[in-house]
Amino acid sequence: MVQRLWRYRSKAHKRIIYTFNALIAPKAIFLLYFKLNIKEMQTQDQQYIKRAIALARKGMDSGAGGPFGCVIVKDGQVIGEGHNEVLLNNDPTAHAEIVAIRRATQHLQSFQLNDCIVYTSCEPCPMCLGAIYWARPLKVVYAATKHDAAAAGFDDSFIYEEIELPVARRKLPIQQLSTEDAVEVFSEWKSKSDKKPY
Amino acid sequence: MVQRLWRYRSKAHKRIIYTFNALIAPKAIFLLYFKLNIKEMQTQDQQYIKRAIALARKGMDSGAGGPFGCVIVKDGQVIGEGHNEVLLNNDPTAHAEIVAIRRATQHLQSFQLNDCIVYTSCEPCPMCLGAIYWARPLKVVYAATKHDAAAAGFDDSFIYEEIELPVARRKLPIQQLSTEDAVEVFSEWKSKSDKKPY
Repeated sequence: MVQRLWRYRSKAHKRIIYTFNALIAPKAIFLLYFKLNIKEMQTQDQQYIKRAIALARKGMDSGAGGPFGCVIVKDGQVIGEGHNEVLLNNDPTAHAEIVAIRRATQHLQSFQLNDCIVYTSCEPCPMCLGAIYWARPLKVVYAATKHDAAAAGFDDSFIYEEIELPVARRKLPIQQLSTEDAVEVFSEWKSKSDKKPY
Repeated sequence: MVQRLWRYRSKAHKRIIYTFNALIAPKAIFLLYFKLNIKEMQTQDQQYIKRAIALARKGMDSGAGGPFGCVIVKDGQVIGEGHNEVLLNNDPTAHAEIVAIRRATQHLQSFQLNDCIVYTSCEPCPMCLGAIYWARPLKVVYAATKHDAAAAGFDDSFIYEEIELPVARRKLPIQQLSTEDAVEVFSEWKSKSDKKPY
């Protein structure tokens, strides 16, 4: 015999349960699902950030460069990753983000990181931030701040300050030598019929 | 018979000539030399800028990328040069300056461009400016401005604006996910005894 597990205590009780089921329950279930989803996304974010930090440590320990790592993810798959290789390759541009972006775009065979997330162990320096803008990913997640980097001797903040200054007030001498040719190549680009904008 | 070519017209005339020779002539000669030297430097600057623009045109015509070229010079010798290769290599970081910096530092087997001059056909974008700061050359000479680049469809100014904004106000979503590990690798770097600062 099937036992009855639920019994309304009164008409008012029944009305309350009906109202709950009709109005509140769907929203509660949706919110719970949404919250779980965010929780899962956060867990994934943390995993990729941990991987970026592990790469930072690997690069530092092997003498390849400073303690910086980067992981690029598309549809839940790592499509490019790397650590700083400035010392290894004598390449001042080989920051972790640049290394990872180059590998990810090679993997995709595209110069754009559409729908990708960039996980980096530290807030990007102006060079890497510029590279990220050109690569156009979905979003960026970072762990340590540029102030943490500065405290460890990496002078990103000096470059941030310089970039914001007008050319004439920067510490690095930068001068313009205007020629007609320089603007002419831009005109040729604009009128080029087979160009591929990027 | 040797003809006398010069004759003082009076004692006052003689005094003027003597004063000129003693005080003004050395300075005049020095200034003339200095001016000629600057003129020669300007001519050299113009030659390298022309070479950078020629590279820009070559890269554009071959379909390698946008119309941008860069030449890096040390002690009157070109030690690295290149044009934009974004399309050729599916690499959003392959701007002319980055390509040339990587080649120049490979040539020098050093991650620094000590005593080098960077000649570029167009004012560097934030990514390339950041790379130049990390490479630490003597100076930068450019031809077209970032406004010329913007008019040709290259949106450097958007990136310049974004970099100057606080993280929370940027159009690109950038979030921090703080972890202790991230700061820990920096502490390890600081206490690393065999590290090579860069």
